[in-house]
Amino acid sequence: MSGCRCACAKFSKSGFLMTKPADGRKRVVIEGVDPEVNAGRFPIKRIVGDIVQVEADVFGDGHDRVTCHLLFRHEDESHQQRVKMEPLGNDRWRASFPVNKTGRYFYTIVGRVDHFGTWRGDLMKRLEAGQDVCLELQTGGLLVEQAARHAEGKDAIQLNEWAHILRTDCDSEDAKVVALEPILAEVMEEYADTGLETKYGRELAVVVDREKARFSSWYELFPRSCSPTVGKHGTFRDVEDRLEYVSRLGFDVLYLPPIHPIGESFRKGKNNSVTAAPDDVGSPWAIGSELGGHTAIHPELGTLDDFLHLMAAAKKFGLEIAMDIAFQCSPDHPWVKEHPKWFRHRADGSIQYAENPPKKYQDIYPLDFESEDWIGLWDGLKGVFGFWIEQGVRIFRVDNPHTKAFPFWEWVIGEIKRDHRDVLFLAEAFTRPRVMERLAKLGFSQSYTYFTWRNTKQDLTDYLEQLTGTEISEYFRPNFWPNTPDILPEPLQIGGKAAFMSRLVLAATLATSYGIYGPAFELQEHTPAKAGGEEYLNSEKYELKHWDLEDKNSLAPFIGIVNRARHENAALQANHALVFHATDNPYLICYSKKSVDGSNTILVVVNLDPYHVQSGWVDLDLDKLGLNPREPYQLHDQLVDTRYLWQGSKNYVELSPLKIPAHVFRVLRRVRSEKDFDYYL
Amino acid sequence: MSGCRCACAKFSKSGFLMTKPADGRKRVVIEGVDPEVNAGRFPIKRIVGDIVQVEADVFGDGHDRVTCHLLFRHEDESHQQRVKMEPLGNDRWRASFPVNKTGRYFYTIVGRVDHFGTWRGDLMKRLEAGQDVCLELQTGGLLVEQAARHAEGKDAIQLNEWAHILRTDCDSEDAKVVALEPILAEVMEEYADTGLETKYGRELAVVVDREKARFSSWYELFPRSCSPTVGKHGTFRDVEDRLEYVSRLGFDVLYLPPIHPIGESFRKGKNNSVTAAPDDVGSPWAIGSELGGHTAIHPELGTLDDFLHLMAAAKKFGLEIAMDIAFQCSPDHPWVKEHPKWFRHRADGSIQYAENPPKKYQDIYPLDFESEDWIGLWDGLKGVFGFWIEQGVRIFRVDNPHTKAFPFWEWVIGEIKRDHRDVLFLAEAFTRPRVMERLAKLGFSQSYTYFTWRNTKQDLTDYLEQLTGTEISEYFRPNFWPNTPDILPEPLQIGGKAAFMSRLVLAATLATSYGIYGPAFELQEHTPAKAGGEEYLNSEKYELKHWDLEDKNSLAPFIGIVNRARHENAALQANHALVFHATDNPYLICYSKKSVDGSNTILVVVNLDPYHVQSGWVDLDLDKLGLNPREPYQLHDQLVDTRYLWQGSKNYVELSPLKIPAHVFRVLRRVRSEKDFDYYL
Repeated sequence: MSGCRCACAKFSKSGFLMTKPADGRKRVVIEGVDPEVNAGRFPIKRIVGDIVQVEADVFGDGHDRVTCHLLFRHEDESHQQRVKMEPLGNDRWRASFPVNKTGRYFYTIVGRVDHFGTWRGDLMKRLEAGQDVCLELQTGGLLVEQAARHAEGKDAIQLNEWAHILRTDCDSEDAKVVALEPILAEVMEEYADTGLETKYGRELAVVVDREKARFSSWYELFPRSCSPTVGKHGTFRDVEDRLEYVSRLGFDVLYLPPIHPIGESFRKGKNNSVTAAPDDVGSPWAIGSELGGHTAIHPELGTLDDFLHLMAAAKKFGLEIAMDIAFQCSPDHPWVKEHPKWFRHRADGSIQYAENPPKKYQDIYPLDFESEDWIGLWDGLKGVFGFWIEQGVRIFRVDNPHTKAFPFWEWVIGEIKRDHRDVLFLAEAFTRPRVMERLAKLGFSQSYTYFTWRNTKQDLTDYLEQLTGTEISEYFRPNFWPNTPDILPEPLQIGGKAAFMSRLVLAATLATSYGIYGPAFELQEHTPAKAGGEEYLNSEKYELKHWDLEDKNSLAPFIGIVNRARHENAALQANHALVFHATDNPYLICYSKKSVDGSNTILVVVNLDPYHVQSGWVDLDLDKLGLNPREPYQLHDQLVDTRYLWQGSKNYVELSPLKIPAHVFRVLRRVRSEKDFDYYL
Repeated sequence: MSGCRCACAKFSKSGFLMTKPADGRKRVVIEGVDPEVNAGRFPIKRIVGDIVQVEADVFGDGHDRVTCHLLFRHEDESHQQRVKMEPLGNDRWRASFPVNKTGRYFYTIVGRVDHFGTWRGDLMKRLEAGQDVCLELQTGGLLVEQAARHAEGKDAIQLNEWAHILRTDCDSEDAKVVALEPILAEVMEEYADTGLETKYGRELAVVVDREKARFSSWYELFPRSCSPTVGKHGTFRDVEDRLEYVSRLGFDVLYLPPIHPIGESFRKGKNNSVTAAPDDVGSPWAIGSELGGHTAIHPELGTLDDFLHLMAAAKKFGLEIAMDIAFQCSPDHPWVKEHPKWFRHRADGSIQYAENPPKKYQDIYPLDFESEDWIGLWDGLKGVFGFWIEQGVRIFRVDNPHTKAFPFWEWVIGEIKRDHRDVLFLAEAFTRPRVMERLAKLGFSQSYTYFTWRNTKQDLTDYLEQLTGTEISEYFRPNFWPNTPDILPEPLQIGGKAAFMSRLVLAATLATSYGIYGPAFELQEHTPAKAGGEEYLNSEKYELKHWDLEDKNSLAPFIGIVNRARHENAALQANHALVFHATDNPYLICYSKKSVDGSNTILVVVNLDPYHVQSGWVDLDLDKLGLNPREPYQLHDQLVDTRYLWQGSKNYVELSPLKIPAHVFRVLRRVRSEKDFDYYL
């Protein structure tokens, strides 16, 4: 069965329709199917437990009634299930199906003229007009008789009986009763002739992932900076000692930068200097040395066994290890000798290092996806994933996927997910919109975003409406990062603690997946390497750091509270119902989210100004919040455990950067009144 | 060559990507192609002389430059022409091609990584930074050497010479000059290796028609009412005598209701009564009698020769005859006996007449498109078109196409246009939006619309923006009718002469094709059969009428003026640049149109209130009109030959229903000033 087919008429060499279709009597048209990405070229994404809602325009010529069904199946099943679609008016139809297993589901639509339904509807109109319907009943009897031929057993007998009454006793009241009997309509539906049914030209796919694909909280740390001793290279054992801390902060994914041997040639020194001192540790992204490449472990971090031990320990703390996959090599990587064809060569035979002219990155050799041995390259890269999957890794954060050929990603992710449906991929692509969208379409489970650079109310609103309210939401799952080892955004450089807090709340409540690069984040590291840039001064990418986790100013407790709110409120685990509400102050942004089942609603207000108290009136869309304008409702702040009683759409808010610059309210619709007393009843 | 192909990866039975693509090194993606209807399933429409502008998202991974080309060809040619696409930013590209012949054109897009362009751009950055580029020049030399292998003759020699300089003399200034030589870039482009070029997965079609498909003015009349003698059945000869009149009104298509023998059985009497008097002439749409069917001519109108004579005479007046094709039969139609299988039968063996329960239309037998002899039926119906095409008919107004199976229309229109590219089809479908759109997609050249029921400023604006500003404009060509023999809209019933005038101006200036049912229109026939209905009292559909064309109140002269304005202003012959301008009075609607070349601009203001003088300020979008806010401009009213001098966006307008309730201004940008005198220079 092909995953995608063309419903194309046949054209001759000159492009003309030359032959009649196989059966020109298929009168129903199916088009405008939603969701459908790139005309069915790519799957949509869901998580286990979701309901997939499908709509389509389905219509026929003339005035006959039309009926249509949504067909779906899980890839493990060959049997297609049918769900009857309901009309929404204007030839639009809708049906849904649940996705209860990981893997791929397929769906499509069939439609046909509903001859019996048309006959039955017309009959009712005739009866209402008091017409003689004897001949009509007989004609209906013919339809029932035809259906009986497709039926067996009891149903066949029953249908023939009904047909007999309609055909031979059409003057009787009995016949009219039989004709309008709902059970007759049901059985007729079951045995309807589907020979002239139109099938939508494409079978559409859904990739269903485990829940973490949508709802995840990431913490990134450099293992080598985890030693309790200043200046000592940290190990996986040290990371184990850090697990309790990360877990206390409420994260569930622990993401480690590359853990492989680091190249020596052209190693970068502190602050990205082109010459390294003898004791400089180098960038973990300069992967590979004589000690091995992408499947080896940097000896100073420990052994493979230590890594396995760390994974097991993390699991006990509810943490899953995400591994960094950076497909690039240091000049010392074993592949450079083993597979010279995987690299591009210059006129003198040397290998082309990475460049962004006039900048040169001589410590990095990019892979050449136009290599004549591209097949070997693809298999080799797949082998890297395969190795770590065997060790139990199930989340990969892929470094710069946009600098590798697109077809590779579709192939490798497809291959891996065929055998391991629980594997997730995060695309670390900070690049142009079409490229980021494409990577998500090709299979990445989550994607880095432009959130890092969206700071104003208008920018945040526009961007989130695009991510959650357009077709993008069908395949692109945002993961919001207020900082990364590469990016210390300007607001964090200049905004102080309030900026860190507000950016954290925004990331954690606007997106269901978010992450921070710590402990730089909670300790509010904010000095850039140079003014106007976004690199950290003394970046951890090039040196060991020692972080004082006990710092009294640390945001760790606050982060713990924010993450608890995420875990306790299903509204923060879904993106679909994000609504922005008006405020009369450009520094106050206000939005709400609802859980899929509607039982949990969260209302967030954030002060975007890190310097001043900002106050103003929010103007809530009560309709979208499901609130009655005449009844009070309670707001329970999940960050500070205070409660407010509000009524109507306009309410006052004041937020100080010196305290907590945000409200994260749980909305409690029901406020007790005298009617709640027993004696009132 | 297939008209449409899927760019689908191969899926296994379980839906997974199983194999690597044929060449995984094709790194460029092409998507978001516009125009493209239903993912390429249907062609777009253009007329001869148009430019087809195509846009697409084209991008690759990483930072390499990308180049892409639009490919196109006419169906008569096998050679594809290439046009280089220009970048618009954000990975969007654009190119255009002209369509100079009727028939089908095909277009698609190819894209590839531009290795030479990338190298050249990088080199410029390196040179700017003062780097040593010797090795780079040598590497570029390799690229040039490779290209030389694809070249022949002079070009090959030249390329090899350049390559030699770059490879062997890289320290010289010569090499740098050669490297940046624009002619080198050009020749490299020509001999670029296209082996890793990505081809867009679909070849898209354009149906190119003659100009009348877009710009046409229709006049509908009943030939039988054309006799100069009251009560006498008109003939084709009488119609000939009417040609000068119709031509004087400025029309170019003369549309005749069916001219075939009219059935006797269940013939409808005057005002659609179910019993006909012996002298009742019946409805022309009850087609067929013992005298013949769809290829016969009603004897009272004349002979086939008379019809041919009429067509020839019409041509002299610049009028083309449009024939009505109504695929339905009276019970007396020869097909009823010859092809009983083409009709649906009831339980008693009788043929099912048309119904809209509880209403019955016993004088009409619909054709059964689910007939087991559907192939015979399709061929038979095609034969009807074929017969009249042989007689010289080139325009068909198809009655109720939405009650015939969709696949039939795609097939028959395709078949006919293969051999006769100049044939045009107008779909008379007043039905739901998706159905009307589908018929247009299937091949109808023009379509009836909801204009008839769009009367307020908001409704007209919304509808026109949909027709001209969305994808619909790619395939749906509106034809606006203020009235038809079936529809006397309420505003014409109650609005008097001013309503007729304003509706005419709206139809004639909002759409490039429009039509009226005359002489009922110009004589302002406005009495409905019953209040609340839209049927004419004493409808011409069921009886002979005698029209007093000399009536002093006739709108004939006014219609002539409006049609002259249409012919003299190219802006009124194109729909693409329709812009609505604000007014401060809800009864004043204001809009402008521009010709394709921009040289002609028309500004229209219509008073939608047929009872009162309405005045107010229009607020023009000067930018879209191409007017300088600081310079005066002249408006020349095409209806009354008066001129106004305006300046800026806000200007006063007053329109009286007692005079002409509309302005149709030609905008003259240039107003003479003292600088126009010779001595000023």
